[in-house]
Amino acid sequence: MTSTPSSNDVSRRTVLSGLAAVPVLVAPLRLANAQAQTQGAWLQSWNEGPVKASIIEFVARVTTPDGADFVPPGERIAVFDNDGTLWCEQPIYAQVAFASDQIRALAPQHPEWRTKQPFQAVLDQGAEALAAVSQSELLEILAVAHTGITVDAFQKTVLDWITTARHPRFDRPYTDLAYQPMLELLAYLRAHEFKPFIVSGGGIDFMRPWTDKVYGIPPEQAVGSSGKTQFEIGADGKPVLVKLAELEFISDGPGKPAGINRFIGRRPIFAFGNSDGDVPMLQWTTSGPGARFAGIVHHTDAEREWAYDRQSNIGKLNKGLDAAPSNKWAVVDMKNDWKRVFAFQ
Amino acid sequence: MTSTPSSNDVSRRTVLSGLAAVPVLVAPLRLANAQAQTQGAWLQSWNEGPVKASIIEFVARVTTPDGADFVPPGERIAVFDNDGTLWCEQPIYAQVAFASDQIRALAPQHPEWRTKQPFQAVLDQGAEALAAVSQSELLEILAVAHTGITVDAFQKTVLDWITTARHPRFDRPYTDLAYQPMLELLAYLRAHEFKPFIVSGGGIDFMRPWTDKVYGIPPEQAVGSSGKTQFEIGADGKPVLVKLAELEFISDGPGKPAGINRFIGRRPIFAFGNSDGDVPMLQWTTSGPGARFAGIVHHTDAEREWAYDRQSNIGKLNKGLDAAPSNKWAVVDMKNDWKRVFAFQ
Repeated sequence: MTSTPSSNDVSRRTVLSGLAAVPVLVAPLRLANAQAQTQGAWLQSWNEGPVKASIIEFVARVTTPDGADFVPPGERIAVFDNDGTLWCEQPIYAQVAFASDQIRALAPQHPEWRTKQPFQAVLDQGAEALAAVSQSELLEILAVAHTGITVDAFQKTVLDWITTARHPRFDRPYTDLAYQPMLELLAYLRAHEFKPFIVSGGGIDFMRPWTDKVYGIPPEQAVGSSGKTQFEIGADGKPVLVKLAELEFISDGPGKPAGINRFIGRRPIFAFGNSDGDVPMLQWTTSGPGARFAGIVHHTDAEREWAYDRQSNIGKLNKGLDAAPSNKWAVVDMKNDWKRVFAFQ
Repeated sequence: MTSTPSSNDVSRRTVLSGLAAVPVLVAPLRLANAQAQTQGAWLQSWNEGPVKASIIEFVARVTTPDGADFVPPGERIAVFDNDGTLWCEQPIYAQVAFASDQIRALAPQHPEWRTKQPFQAVLDQGAEALAAVSQSELLEILAVAHTGITVDAFQKTVLDWITTARHPRFDRPYTDLAYQPMLELLAYLRAHEFKPFIVSGGGIDFMRPWTDKVYGIPPEQAVGSSGKTQFEIGADGKPVLVKLAELEFISDGPGKPAGINRFIGRRPIFAFGNSDGDVPMLQWTTSGPGARFAGIVHHTDAEREWAYDRQSNIGKLNKGLDAAPSNKWAVVDMKNDWKRVFAFQ
């Protein structure tokens, strides 16, 4: 696992979360926070407004010792959707671009794909051919494409792709399209001894190789959809884990609370999503006892990113917008609540 | 999740791991360790010998900055089997006793069990009727018995049972039968910024309610076999997760490396087991690059606990004993390597 980005890499994470990334310095940092906060050193890319205020107010409530809503650090579980919540999901999911590139790269070994859908369509039209497929269909395609390769080899494939592929609109690595305000939110929560998890409908093997470096979220705190693997002793006598074609778990919609229960085993107190696929996760989080926070990233900024919600094919946000007011979920108006969307802007 | 034992409970964990349980004090503690170790303050229930020496030597190697085998704290993943490795698994798995008690408790609502195996046998003969069933058969029985109850209700059932049930031989709560030397090992590893996980063939929902309190291992660091759950909006409009009869994942034998890959996403550098079901986990751990440690608890102490290995129905250790020498796995001779087996002895 030496190719796994380590929690100690010099990375955006350590830059952003600063000393908070080093557990031994949490205490001094925590003392510093009181002043830091009043000086507005946290959440710098967030405009002052009800959403920023509600985040700071919630964190203060659950971290104030002897407060009625105090939550011990070990139980400060925060969950975040990935696509559209932590990074850009338009005009296609990064994983769709990856799948398309993988199909093209592997096509020479699969002549049958020339006449088999959706492979043929991808080879003819590129990633757009996959724009309409569902999360589970996409994972099935990837599972088929990578059947028989080891998890270590797949991890290397993902790392090679994520460091070289570029976003079609911004012409930058996809990892540059992490939302700066959300990275600051992760750092802010870590500094207050929250334990942030990703809970994504995307493939867990596609995320884990880079989430630590980009978000400061280590592999064991990434929950996602997964395919089955098989333990085998290789020809050289070395054990390997081989990817099978069979899907194992889809972590989307109602699968998100199920995935949280299975991977984390505690109900989160803080959750952030951006689409109707996140609604069950927000419901599960905010219906628990005690103080709870849920937020929705509403994409309202066509100029700096994208503007979409109720009718969108990707990241459709319809039920979520309807449910937010009665559930007191904070809705981020990207255009007005975020000073910056990306670090490079 | 308020009934979940919190990481901050005053518990055996905090007593044992002492300040190490508090991340902000890891640094001062680490400095203290250098002296503490030479003063033999760690691993007090371990007799001096090759196994204790190899553990201390390994931890020093991977934690020495600038050392050739240094591993960053974030990557110091340690995995432990539960039954027979962290606590007593004889004369029957605690989970078997739990299942038997549950079948008896639920029998009135299931008249059909009077004529249906294995339920009928349990109602007639008690837990012994389940002694021969496999891990997956046992989980299927539990899944059937608890179909339709919520995960919160099941958690409460487990907590009620674990605090009242008593071990047939020692007449104490099963949680008193955690191995004192292994609790000290967990504390020692935590103090050196290892992240310990349980990887058990047992049901994850049976372990998570108490592993934090007993071992200092929080729910999100417990991997085990699981059944499917379904997200529903209850009659009162509140979301619930309901247990289904269907098994989802068996974390035993080759399923342990698969479970480690799926739940943790990194290859461990340290692993401990006690039976042939743990061999794939030990192979997977020690075949990775860099310094690796694997240990086997060999039950050789009929007087203080039990003596069993190659022919045992429970915790059969045959392949593991054969594989240990060539793989340089440390084999704990319980009788000679452990000063005490249980805290109460």
